[in-house]
Amino acid sequence: MSSKGTGETVKRTRLSPDERRLQLITLGAKMLGDRAIEDISITEIAEEAGISRGLLFHYFPTKQDFQLAIVRHANAELLERVAPDRSLGVSEMLRDSIERYIEYVSENRNSYVSLLRGPASVTPELVPLVDQTRDAIIGIILTEVPVPIDAAERPRLTLAMRGWIAFVEEATLTWLRNETITRDQLVDLLVESLLALALSLNPALGAALRG
Amino acid sequence: MSSKGTGETVKRTRLSPDERRLQLITLGAKMLGDRAIEDISITEIAEEAGISRGLLFHYFPTKQDFQLAIVRHANAELLERVAPDRSLGVSEMLRDSIERYIEYVSENRNSYVSLLRGPASVTPELVPLVDQTRDAIIGIILTEVPVPIDAAERPRLTLAMRGWIAFVEEATLTWLRNETITRDQLVDLLVESLLALALSLNPALGAALRG
Repeated sequence: MSSKGTGETVKRTRLSPDERRLQLITLGAKMLGDRAIEDISITEIAEEAGISRGLLFHYFPTKQDFQLAIVRHANAELLERVAPDRSLGVSEMLRDSIERYIEYVSENRNSYVSLLRGPASVTPELVPLVDQTRDAIIGIILTEVPVPIDAAERPRLTLAMRGWIAFVEEATLTWLRNETITRDQLVDLLVESLLALALSLNPALGAALRG
Repeated sequence: MSSKGTGETVKRTRLSPDERRLQLITLGAKMLGDRAIEDISITEIAEEAGISRGLLFHYFPTKQDFQLAIVRHANAELLERVAPDRSLGVSEMLRDSIERYIEYVSENRNSYVSLLRGPASVTPELVPLVDQTRDAIIGIILTEVPVPIDAAERPRLTLAMRGWIAFVEEATLTWLRNETITRDQLVDLLVESLLALALSLNPALGAALRG
């Protein structure tokens, strides 16, 4: 079915305001899979949804509001994708989540590059959104690891975890540009880097992560 | 001596074109210590140098040319600052260079934040300049480590080193925002992270770095 055809079908559907909002965000997030956030086209999305640009702006007063809603949606999608599979041991769980992270990023490479290194990545509205996702990932990891973390140790650990997320992002971005190693080798590198770092920071944490 | 006084003195000095260029860049780099690259003021610098804005634009056709020359200068300054002290063993040399890195960054925090996370940090002109500095630092580390690196292993090592630089930058930026640990603890974290990573990547490399 062509995209135009889909548009026509949608046109005949009456949606509640919440459904319409979700539809627009979903179309935006789908478009974000292929392009940078600043290249999301309001006109194309309104057309696909079978509504006027004016009606879209009724749901999202500015283009930026719409962009931020799409990024929020994409972030939630990423977090769902990497959600730990608790049927696995800690070490396999970590590897499994990182595999799904790289899978998601590979499917959404243009938006990943755009959100992390594009013009949008330094805007005061977007920075906190992307940062929240990073903090959520750190939170997930520390929650899954059955090691009590001393309050006095937390600041150093937080810095290290933020550093590790930056490690993951930079290694992944560099890998996307020229895949000099296989995807499995990249996953290994990311897993090993966290294990090595955790072990050097706190031997109990390192041991727990290694499972 | 007031900055105005210096300006007056300079005004009377006839400089060769190369000297004038260097003078302007040096004044710009000094200003960059206190502010973001996009806030470098051509007017203030021309005034300090005791020349007209027009003459400054004779040396640097656009404001961007001037900014890039300043960033090149600042990058060279950083690389000189972290140059390895070969009178030390590898492990002390690493720690010593990282200490001087943090020292430099603390003295130039506004420009550090601006070059790594500000609007300028995503411009196509600036990205390669900052990247060159990162690659130069990676080159220095790998040169100082007396371990032959297998060609087949190089891609993985390069990704990991780029990731580690991102780790250093993110941990340092987060630390600058709220110094939750001491400077010495930050230096320890950065040193330990590289040792741990190197050890997990290549035991011989890790052992050589630990000295």
